[in-house]
Amino acid sequence: MLAGMPAAESPGEIASFWAVVPAGGAGTRLWPLSRASSPKFLHDLTGEGRTLVQATLDRLRPLTGERVLVVTGVAHRDAVVEQLPELPARQVLAEPSPRDSMAAIGLAAALLERDHPDAVMGSFAADHVIRDPEVFRGTVARAVAAAEQGWLVTIGIEPTHPATGFGYIDVGEALPGLEGAHRVEEFVEKPDAATATGYLERGHRWNAGMFVVRPTVLLDLLSEQHPGMAKDLRAIASGEKDLASAWPTLTRIAIDHAVAEPAAAAGRVAVVPGSFRWDDVGDFASLGEILADDDGKLTVLGDDSLVRSVQSSGLVVPGGGRTVAVIGLDDVVVVDTGDALLVTSTKHAQDVKKIVEALKDEGRSDLT
Amino acid sequence: MLAGMPAAESPGEIASFWAVVPAGGAGTRLWPLSRASSPKFLHDLTGEGRTLVQATLDRLRPLTGERVLVVTGVAHRDAVVEQLPELPARQVLAEPSPRDSMAAIGLAAALLERDHPDAVMGSFAADHVIRDPEVFRGTVARAVAAAEQGWLVTIGIEPTHPATGFGYIDVGEALPGLEGAHRVEEFVEKPDAATATGYLERGHRWNAGMFVVRPTVLLDLLSEQHPGMAKDLRAIASGEKDLASAWPTLTRIAIDHAVAEPAAAAGRVAVVPGSFRWDDVGDFASLGEILADDDGKLTVLGDDSLVRSVQSSGLVVPGGGRTVAVIGLDDVVVVDTGDALLVTSTKHAQDVKKIVEALKDEGRSDLT
Repeated sequence: MLAGMPAAESPGEIASFWAVVPAGGAGTRLWPLSRASSPKFLHDLTGEGRTLVQATLDRLRPLTGERVLVVTGVAHRDAVVEQLPELPARQVLAEPSPRDSMAAIGLAAALLERDHPDAVMGSFAADHVIRDPEVFRGTVARAVAAAEQGWLVTIGIEPTHPATGFGYIDVGEALPGLEGAHRVEEFVEKPDAATATGYLERGHRWNAGMFVVRPTVLLDLLSEQHPGMAKDLRAIASGEKDLASAWPTLTRIAIDHAVAEPAAAAGRVAVVPGSFRWDDVGDFASLGEILADDDGKLTVLGDDSLVRSVQSSGLVVPGGGRTVAVIGLDDVVVVDTGDALLVTSTKHAQDVKKIVEALKDEGRSDLT
Repeated sequence: MLAGMPAAESPGEIASFWAVVPAGGAGTRLWPLSRASSPKFLHDLTGEGRTLVQATLDRLRPLTGERVLVVTGVAHRDAVVEQLPELPARQVLAEPSPRDSMAAIGLAAALLERDHPDAVMGSFAADHVIRDPEVFRGTVARAVAAAEQGWLVTIGIEPTHPATGFGYIDVGEALPGLEGAHRVEEFVEKPDAATATGYLERGHRWNAGMFVVRPTVLLDLLSEQHPGMAKDLRAIASGEKDLASAWPTLTRIAIDHAVAEPAAAAGRVAVVPGSFRWDDVGDFASLGEILADDDGKLTVLGDDSLVRSVQSSGLVVPGGGRTVAVIGLDDVVVVDTGDALLVTSTKHAQDVKKIVEALKDEGRSDLT
């Protein structure tokens, strides 16, 4: 690093800061790469030699050291522990069954409240791609500063285009004394294209589902909306209730609906702007965009010595060890694996889910 | 068959008639299905359970019984013998090296002239697809009748569209006393689209490279143009010359240029019209057309339980045992094999050859 770089861009460890990393979701629209048995976060989707969950921890470690809790499905716990050898295995929590993000993040919050009452926690999904890690960490440090003042803080990503696949944050007044922080007026749902263009003009930001907050603040906010759920999570943490038996009784709800939206309506959510490149890699079109180097050629994720192409653009994943030849197709998506092959176009990337649903209906758990 | 069907449509065996089946050519544009090591004629390209060379003999047998000579490369002789268990193995001739069609057919002619001086031979490539076998056999029987009168007879296929991938036959005056036969004015090369349309208007026919002729007539015609070659072929048949040593010295020339074109110019070639559906299956576009049932859906060659598709048309060959999912692509071509995968469109079917050439340049004989 050059001498004289502003320290704010590269914050060091924040002793009170814990990251919570929910590692869930099958990534259905990334089939056949991502499957229920081997979901998206376990895959190296950037070709940089690290899986998404590994890259998520790599990005956070300069801030947290090993102060990270990963929350994943019981079926994937061993794989996550294996991929994260430096993380103490007890910090990889296994959900007995999927109960959506409020239960997963709330469990981590209750454990942190019990063991580290002065902590600030930040939740960051295990399956997103972020391209500017230093900018990301600077943003998180500012969010931590606001969370220390008692705010539920979200990070508002600067939109690069009027995306219709993300929710948006309506940014309100600046909060004095908190660098860059604003009050959140409202979280708004995924818009149509025209609405999205309007959002960009009005300075809305993408909602990346990142929340930075004191565990007690989070659980108290939850308690206002869903008192039983907050109580149960705290009872699991204290040992009053058994995880395995209490878990299936928890409300299945996303943290956005359970806490963030009602708290925003009450003026209690802050947003810190983030200008790093972020994507949730929802489908092969977005993966193709993340990986493209804008030369208009075919992008290869994996061993490019396996790919031969003539007059083609798009994304090829040669994951079956075989030679893949692509001729005369624009915006094509070819994903080759040992037992299944997908051929489509970026325009139809969302429809991959239809194939997966059809295969599930047929009982093909071997393929899905 | 219904009683009263005209016998002419279903001729029985013709005792003097021998079929010569050249089985050569790699079918490069059908890669990765067809390869130098496993060419097109060894594959079941119609999904009917018979390879092209098997189907060729199936189609001829009602006329010839086992009076068939197959001429193939030394590398493929064993495979051909295995695929044709009813044919005496000595009737599968091995060319020591590829010397084009005149050498292959001329060798068969010389052997037939020696052993069956009264025979009529007909040459039919091992890698074409013909859809109306009874009509085909009726046509061949008429060609044999003309050949018995000393003509070199070709079969002129009734064009279904102004194809640019085939040569054409300019049909001249009717030949009295020979049912349906006309003199050939000229063989013309593959035309451009506008020329092809003009050919159809003028009643030209497709040249399918089928020749029916007495062996002696063929060799004498050859002798007029290439006396040394005719002499060498007859010397090989008589044992005066050794096949292995004489073969590499033979002129490398197609039967069309060596004999058919000069003989037509001399007014010595007859054409018998054929109205059966024929295709030389030159690439995946033509294979797709042959297999399509005109419902606008995706055609599957192989196990269609392996294919899932949404809003797609074209051709899928699931030859790798894996599930193949195709979404939102029109006129797509997907050919999956154990070690190579091709993804293109019917429009680019001719360009498959570029991939094969590139792989050959890289020395990838394992794939080509």
